[in-house]
Amino acid sequence: MSEPRLLPLLDAPHPERRDAARNREALLLAAQRLVDHCGVDGVTMDAVAHEAGVGKGTVFRRFVSREGLMAALLNFSETEWQAAVMSGPPPLGPGAEPWDRLMAFGRSRLETTIKHADLIRHAGRAGSRSFAAYSFVAMHVRYLLGELHVTGDLPLLATALMAPLEAPILDQQVRIEGLEVDRVYAGWVDLARRVVRSP
Amino acid sequence: MSEPRLLPLLDAPHPERRDAARNREALLLAAQRLVDHCGVDGVTMDAVAHEAGVGKGTVFRRFVSREGLMAALLNFSETEWQAAVMSGPPPLGPGAEPWDRLMAFGRSRLETTIKHADLIRHAGRAGSRSFAAYSFVAMHVRYLLGELHVTGDLPLLATALMAPLEAPILDQQVRIEGLEVDRVYAGWVDLARRVVRSP
Repeated sequence: MSEPRLLPLLDAPHPERRDAARNREALLLAAQRLVDHCGVDGVTMDAVAHEAGVGKGTVFRRFVSREGLMAALLNFSETEWQAAVMSGPPPLGPGAEPWDRLMAFGRSRLETTIKHADLIRHAGRAGSRSFAAYSFVAMHVRYLLGELHVTGDLPLLATALMAPLEAPILDQQVRIEGLEVDRVYAGWVDLARRVVRSP
Repeated sequence: MSEPRLLPLLDAPHPERRDAARNREALLLAAQRLVDHCGVDGVTMDAVAHEAGVGKGTVFRRFVSREGLMAALLNFSETEWQAAVMSGPPPLGPGAEPWDRLMAFGRSRLETTIKHADLIRHAGRAGSRSFAAYSFVAMHVRYLLGELHVTGDLPLLATALMAPLEAPILDQQVRIEGLEVDRVYAGWVDLARRVVRSP
């Protein structure tokens, strides 16, 4: 652990490690295709191995269990969404007015969370780790509220705007109570208007 | 299952069942005392048996596992809170102005959820069932928004006011980020003002 500079090669890109990352991504992309076409229930270790053209043992070596695969998939999809917010096209990405970005954020977060809700359920305990994504979202909403010149305790107002977009809440509204996604989004837009409007 | 009226005695109060309910309540009260004095970690099946003066086997027969006990305790405490809202003293209970009741609801729900957060974690999967409590809270907040003449999609505005008081959100803010409960409550009061204020 000490004097890591004496071992410079450990820090240089390692061909095998690059291969491992590529293989891992290929497996996750295969799993993502299965989710898109067959839903989360269709994503078994066998199906992923078949879709990616590798042996089942390879899938188990990478992800240990189906829950592990679900957690990795969740993380992979969350990272893609964050990239779209940070550097994707406007209005979700930079370059649009802050209100338009907030609206695009709300719609996109709502849809992403609904897509992720199944994964979170299937990821078991590991699914709750995706709560680390919380701080990225919190920073983004807080930044937009600042750009909109909202006054008050911005971190808490940001939480208030994020909370109705969390998985257990949306799961309750959309899957259990059967509310239309458009109605939930309209309710969120109304909330955002009330929060942003100056007193 | 058919013609239940031919078996009237099955619907009459059953002395043994009343005893069972009393015993169950005695065990839950003992567990609640342990939570208050030693925190959730101090609540083992052994400790509950000792506190209630019964054998450990009795506690296992009633609750099957420590997780089962935690879930029962959660349900018991939630029921007590609901009774306070429905028929306890104002301003949480009936008899105060709707804005004062909303404020008392926010404070009380915040504190109850923080108290429950440990139980929810220890109840494992069974803890998520406490989400049934959601509809009681939703109805109450929706009722108060109506009394306050708020216009808009009241069920969704009610959700927006409830969401920041949910256990995973408060757990993140208070336990992980270390925010003061008073600051979280002040943020919620500000949110409620923005939601209730007419456009």
